[in-house]
Amino acid sequence: MKDVISQYRIDKEPYYRAVSDEIAVYDAAYSVRMPMMLKGPTGCGKTRFIEYMAWKLQKPLITVACNEDMTASDLVGRFLLDANGTRWQDGPLTIAARFGAICYLDEVVEARQDTTVVIHPLTDNRRVLPLEKTGELVSAHPDFQLVISYNPGYQSVMKDLKQSTKQRFGALDFKYPEPAIEEEIVSHETGVPREIAGKLVSIAKMARNLKGHGLDEGISTRMLIYAGNLIANNVEAKRACRVALAAPITDDPDMRDALDAAVTTFFG
Amino acid sequence: MKDVISQYRIDKEPYYRAVSDEIAVYDAAYSVRMPMMLKGPTGCGKTRFIEYMAWKLQKPLITVACNEDMTASDLVGRFLLDANGTRWQDGPLTIAARFGAICYLDEVVEARQDTTVVIHPLTDNRRVLPLEKTGELVSAHPDFQLVISYNPGYQSVMKDLKQSTKQRFGALDFKYPEPAIEEEIVSHETGVPREIAGKLVSIAKMARNLKGHGLDEGISTRMLIYAGNLIANNVEAKRACRVALAAPITDDPDMRDALDAAVTTFFG
Amino acid sequence: MKDVISQYRIDKEPYYRAVSDEIAVYDAAYSVRMPMMLKGPTGCGKTRFIEYMAWKLQKPLITVACNEDMTASDLVGRFLLDANGTRWQDGPLTIAARFGAICYLDEVVEARQDTTVVIHPLTDNRRVLPLEKTGELVSAHPDFQLVISYNPGYQSVMKDLKQSTKQRFGALDFKYPEPAIEEEIVSHETGVPREIAGKLVSIAKMARNLKGHGLDEGISTRMLIYAGNLIANNVEAKRACRVALAAPITDDPDMRDALDAAVTTFFG
Amino acid sequence: MKDVISQYRIDKEPYYRAVSDEIAVYDAAYSVRMPMMLKGPTGCGKTRFIEYMAWKLQKPLITVACNEDMTASDLVGRFLLDANGTRWQDGPLTIAARFGAICYLDEVVEARQDTTVVIHPLTDNRRVLPLEKTGELVSAHPDFQLVISYNPGYQSVMKDLKQSTKQRFGALDFKYPEPAIEEEIVSHETGVPREIAGKLVSIAKMARNLKGHGLDEGISTRMLIYAGNLIANNVEAKRACRVALAAPITDDPDMRDALDAAVTTFFG
Amino acid sequence: MKDVISQYRIDKEPYYRAVSDEIAVYDAAYSVRMPMMLKGPTGCGKTRFIEYMAWKLQKPLITVACNEDMTASDLVGRFLLDANGTRWQDGPLTIAARFGAICYLDEVVEARQDTTVVIHPLTDNRRVLPLEKTGELVSAHPDFQLVISYNPGYQSVMKDLKQSTKQRFGALDFKYPEPAIEEEIVSHETGVPREIAGKLVSIAKMARNLKGHGLDEGISTRMLIYAGNLIANNVEAKRACRVALAAPITDDPDMRDALDAAVTTFFG
Amino acid sequence: MKDVISQYRIDKEPYYRAVSDEIAVYDAAYSVRMPMMLKGPTGCGKTRFIEYMAWKLQKPLITVACNEDMTASDLVGRFLLDANGTRWQDGPLTIAARFGAICYLDEVVEARQDTTVVIHPLTDNRRVLPLEKTGELVSAHPDFQLVISYNPGYQSVMKDLKQSTKQRFGALDFKYPEPAIEEEIVSHETGVPREIAGKLVSIAKMARNLKGHGLDEGISTRMLIYAGNLIANNVEAKRACRVALAAPITDDPDMRDALDAAVTTFFG
Repeated sequence: MKDVISQYRIDKEPYYRAVSDEIAVYDAAYSVRMPMMLKGPTGCGKTRFIEYMAWKLQKPLITVACNEDMTASDLVGRFLLDANGTRWQDGPLTIAARFGAICYLDEVVEARQDTTVVIHPLTDNRRVLPLEKTGELVSAHPDFQLVISYNPGYQSVMKDLKQSTKQRFGALDFKYPEPAIEEEIVSHETGVPREIAGKLVSIAKMARNLKGHGLDEGISTRMLIYAGNLIANNVEAKRACRVALAAPITDDPDMRDALDAAVTTFFG
Repeated sequence: MKDVISQYRIDKEPYYRAVSDEIAVYDAAYSVRMPMMLKGPTGCGKTRFIEYMAWKLQKPLITVACNEDMTASDLVGRFLLDANGTRWQDGPLTIAARFGAICYLDEVVEARQDTTVVIHPLTDNRRVLPLEKTGELVSAHPDFQLVISYNPGYQSVMKDLKQSTKQRFGALDFKYPEPAIEEEIVSHETGVPREIAGKLVSIAKMARNLKGHGLDEGISTRMLIYAGNLIANNVEAKRACRVALAAPITDDPDMRDALDAAVTTFFG
Repeated sequence: MKDVISQYRIDKEPYYRAVSDEIAVYDAAYSVRMPMMLKGPTGCGKTRFIEYMAWKLQKPLITVACNEDMTASDLVGRFLLDANGTRWQDGPLTIAARFGAICYLDEVVEARQDTTVVIHPLTDNRRVLPLEKTGELVSAHPDFQLVISYNPGYQSVMKDLKQSTKQRFGALDFKYPEPAIEEEIVSHETGVPREIAGKLVSIAKMARNLKGHGLDEGISTRMLIYAGNLIANNVEAKRACRVALAAPITDDPDMRDALDAAVTTFFG
Repeated sequence: MKDVISQYRIDKEPYYRAVSDEIAVYDAAYSVRMPMMLKGPTGCGKTRFIEYMAWKLQKPLITVACNEDMTASDLVGRFLLDANGTRWQDGPLTIAARFGAICYLDEVVEARQDTTVVIHPLTDNRRVLPLEKTGELVSAHPDFQLVISYNPGYQSVMKDLKQSTKQRFGALDFKYPEPAIEEEIVSHETGVPREIAGKLVSIAKMARNLKGHGLDEGISTRMLIYAGNLIANNVEAKRACRVALAAPITDDPDMRDALDAAVTTFFG
Repeated sequence: MKDVISQYRIDKEPYYRAVSDEIAVYDAAYSVRMPMMLKGPTGCGKTRFIEYMAWKLQKPLITVACNEDMTASDLVGRFLLDANGTRWQDGPLTIAARFGAICYLDEVVEARQDTTVVIHPLTDNRRVLPLEKTGELVSAHPDFQLVISYNPGYQSVMKDLKQSTKQRFGALDFKYPEPAIEEEIVSHETGVPREIAGKLVSIAKMARNLKGHGLDEGISTRMLIYAGNLIANNVEAKRACRVALAAPITDDPDMRDALDAAVTTFFG
Repeated sequence: MKDVISQYRIDKEPYYRAVSDEIAVYDAAYSVRMPMMLKGPTGCGKTRFIEYMAWKLQKPLITVACNEDMTASDLVGRFLLDANGTRWQDGPLTIAARFGAICYLDEVVEARQDTTVVIHPLTDNRRVLPLEKTGELVSAHPDFQLVISYNPGYQSVMKDLKQSTKQRFGALDFKYPEPAIEEEIVSHETGVPREIAGKLVSIAKMARNLKGHGLDEGISTRMLIYAGNLIANNVEAKRACRVALAAPITDDPDMRDALDAAVTTFFG
């Protein structure tokens, strides 16, 4: 089973540009194994942050992209059938608890309630995971920690974490980085010059003001990196912005015009 | 099967600070094996109380975190397949009934109705559990008792226990502890000085007045312990309150301001 | 299979206090094996009555607590897998039909429609149960009788028995017993003196007037027995009434006050 | 497989009292194997009629009580697992088609649409039943006929047969029998004198006028037989009418009074 | 596998009375294997037409009656278990694609969307069917063609084919035949004299005007054949029309009167 | 496993008529393995474009027609049972990731959310696919790329890609081709003369103006090819337009008239 866990180790330092004291706070939270919630919009760096922390703490990281069809079994495990009958197969949460990984449940609010309730006994002082189907009570490894992500601009009344779940987590707020930092990130990740990266960040700044006025979300750092990548591969800048920044997120003609105008301002 | 039950024994006295005569009433209820319902908000100590009582009575405790996707089979048991065909595997409720544990169904109202109806024959004078899939009629062990938790501020019309279920239980009301007691608990659990603990309790008192005026729930004792833990790990007090008390439960700017103001009053 | 049925025999006469001619009418109904419906509020003695009749008629009694996730297979049976392939396992209804038990479907209205339709061929002159999955047509044993319970104050428009089901049953109405009889029952079941039992019955009488004016159901005989049990175990009477009569059924402050006032009138 | 079908043969002439030319019309329909629909209220004799016709035509009768959780597999068949792998098990419709029985789908409208569509190829000139799971195309036996029942006072807009299903059937209308005939039936089935039977029929006549004015359905012939049975077993007539006619179908105090008044008129 | 396909061959010419150039158009469509949609009301001859064309083109015809509980697996195939483990069983669509049959999906709109999407790759120039469960990519046999039926008067907004499905088919419109042709059909199919058949057709014409004014659908050619069949079996004409034309499709007294009046006009 | 992937190679250059710089942009996107979204109406050439690009890049192409009943298992894979127990079978997405194909998810918005979330880890810098059921973490082959299609005129509020999914893709907009190009395509694909093809394109142009004024979608290039095919097979032009252009998409008499008028204008 050592092999199962070793594939989740992060050998190379991920590129992460800190924006505040988030690394120190997370260190303190991990030292008491406090369950943590990373809050913020899509594509702002939450996943990269947890990868960085896992590397810094030298702990394996098991990431699960949650979805509304995911069941508790997908997290906890299930019986498989082999030549000698059924055999229990640990799910990612059980592997993490058993071998001492950080378990990162991405967009946990998408999951059905049973997946969120199944984590409760791992988040209070018992730190146990009852495998009801086998009758085993797994005591979490001392290194185990539970982390979830949460997009506050995203939850409907119908689909939100229960208060009794939220109260089991400390929380760190994430936003898009400040312009200078974001410019540094885009340039680092794509290889385009700082000047080009700066123009892309300026376009994003204008577009983010459209959030709630025709756009559901602003343009994320990830999208700027896509645009930068196309430019670095010889696609003309305005065309690259169309393909990577505008076309994916809106088909509304007015929004398209507004985004084109922003692009023209900087790449006119 | 002795091993199955022994893992549910509580060897070490759990820290529990009584707030009223709840221990004596529970003793009386257990002496006639009356099914009990623990009512109160999330994080106020219901789970800790039942752990304490199980330790005091020297009975194993089987806790099940209920959820809306849980089925009667998750409680009662199911058939597994091995080399000789199907084999019955007792669920947690059946193990508790068979071996004489206290079975604690946490947030039972979240479960589907079949999980609540399946407990009926265990709560009247028959004290039996029919395993319909095997045709066995399990008579409960003399030590068996059923306990459920229930959060009164939480149930919708759509999702509540049926009257015919409620009437099968005696009930104990729980609240957040009085300030002096809560201060004692926070200090004991985190190691922060009584003065710091007292400030955290005062912040919680202010925040609990916001319940129903922008907050769905007040700040629980558990959250105060989280904040204390961060402070004890050298996170600055105001930052710790933000991470542990405010950020997890609200994203509303007004509520954030109100909570920040409360924090500044004591840690300004 | 004799063992399967013998566990459902009732060896000891259950305590049942008749309130009218219900025993004679049931005897007549059983003599023509008329399917019967026991109607009345929760906790008024329907289950005890059918246990008593099963003992009196010396027939095994198979009780099934119905619920909305119960399927026809839970009643009729299913295929299990063993070393030689699938093997049919009779469900409780099939066992009752095959071996001549009284089958009592408690709160049948909670079950999905397929469970109610599956009983139709057992309730007309054919008295057969087709096991569609095996192709067997089970002819009911001459002793077999079907009994269901039904709480009239409880059914919504959405969830009621179909007329074509109701018309297949004779029906007996049950109510809470007259005060003198209820006092006798509470004293007999708990060992408290008739005077204490009488006070509990008087409290129940006042509380039952609140049904429909803030309480969904009145206080049942079962709850009075719970209160008596706590008193017999040295819990102070007012506290016992709070734990056993008020706290389980309401969290409304006004209702709590009204119930407390009723308790104070008799135990002040 | 001969044994499978032989259990569906009706050896003894069922008691059936014809009310019109329904026997002759059915004979003509059967001679061209026209699929038939029996329409009428619950408990008016549809099931008894088809049993009689099956006996008269000397064909086996396979009756399926349809319900909303029934699937096409419940009608057509399924794979079972035995020591040599999966084995196909014909469902009741397939057995009927293969061996030439009359297949009677009782309350077919309750079934899910797939059960109604699965019968389509059996109702047009192909008279085939494709078993999609085995790849077999079963040609119906020359004796096979499909019959369904339908309660017109019962269907909601949400739950009705599709036009494309209805048009595949001839239809016979059934009502409660004329008073003289119903009196004859009740007396024959219960052994009570014609005078008592006549009074029961008169009560039914009054009660049937309440249909749509507080009662969902009238009192059926079946219920009159229940009342007669209790009377024949020495239950007093008014009590028998309460148990068999009023209590099963209504809890409304006004309706109870109206039915009691009708009973008093004849058994006062 | 030759046997699987041979049972779908049509050896005898089906009786089909052409009403327009539908045979020539279909021939052209088949020559380029254009997927076809047959549109028209229930019972107007769509199924008979495709049977005739399959006979004329000498291709096997696999008909699937679609329904809302049908899954993609019912069309494409599934794994079965035998002594050596799982074995793939082709579904009707896969058999048709593999062996070159015409696959006729009757009332395809009733099926769940996955059944309609699964046909997409078979309807564009790739003509492939990916069996995702086996990883096989079935290239359609050169003779394979896909045909669906569609009742335009029938679809609700909720349940309609997607535009991206509709655009993959050529379409032929069907109506009830002209009176002279319909008279010829009814007489041919039932053996009643042309005069009787003509009266039945006239009744149908009157009834079809009631569509949308109290009747959901008109009387189909199939129903006229039913009526003719009963008349040919010595049921009196008015009674036959009641059983075959009126009773199956309406219980509304006004509609019954209107249909009776139409019948009396011709068979009075 | 080489055989599994080789069946997805495209050996022959597909006919694709470029309309803009889409080939160059796609080349750049592929060079950084940017996930791509092809947006545009049904039948405008998106599928043909991706087939062409796969041929040009000499990569295998695995196309999956998404639907609302598709589960994550249909994409990722599942356990099958064989003589030695369960065996894992890669789904199409896993095959593509493992062997380096372009995976094209057609109409991905139709799929349930779990299918869209399952692609997330393949679209960020990790490029991994966790097979939770086996515990394997598949690292994508360097050649792997993910492509989805999306019809903007088609999505309801209820059914749209989540922002957090959209932001993971670059996007290319597709429209129906310009008239001259579309004429060239229709003529090339069907063999009809340019003049006939031009008339068909002119009819389409008129019909596309009806979109949103009675038609849900315009007439696609694919439909023009169907009409051309019928004409090339000697169906008269007006009849061919009726069968291929009008009848499949509308039953509204006004729309039929409008389309007939357009046809008459050019083929009058």
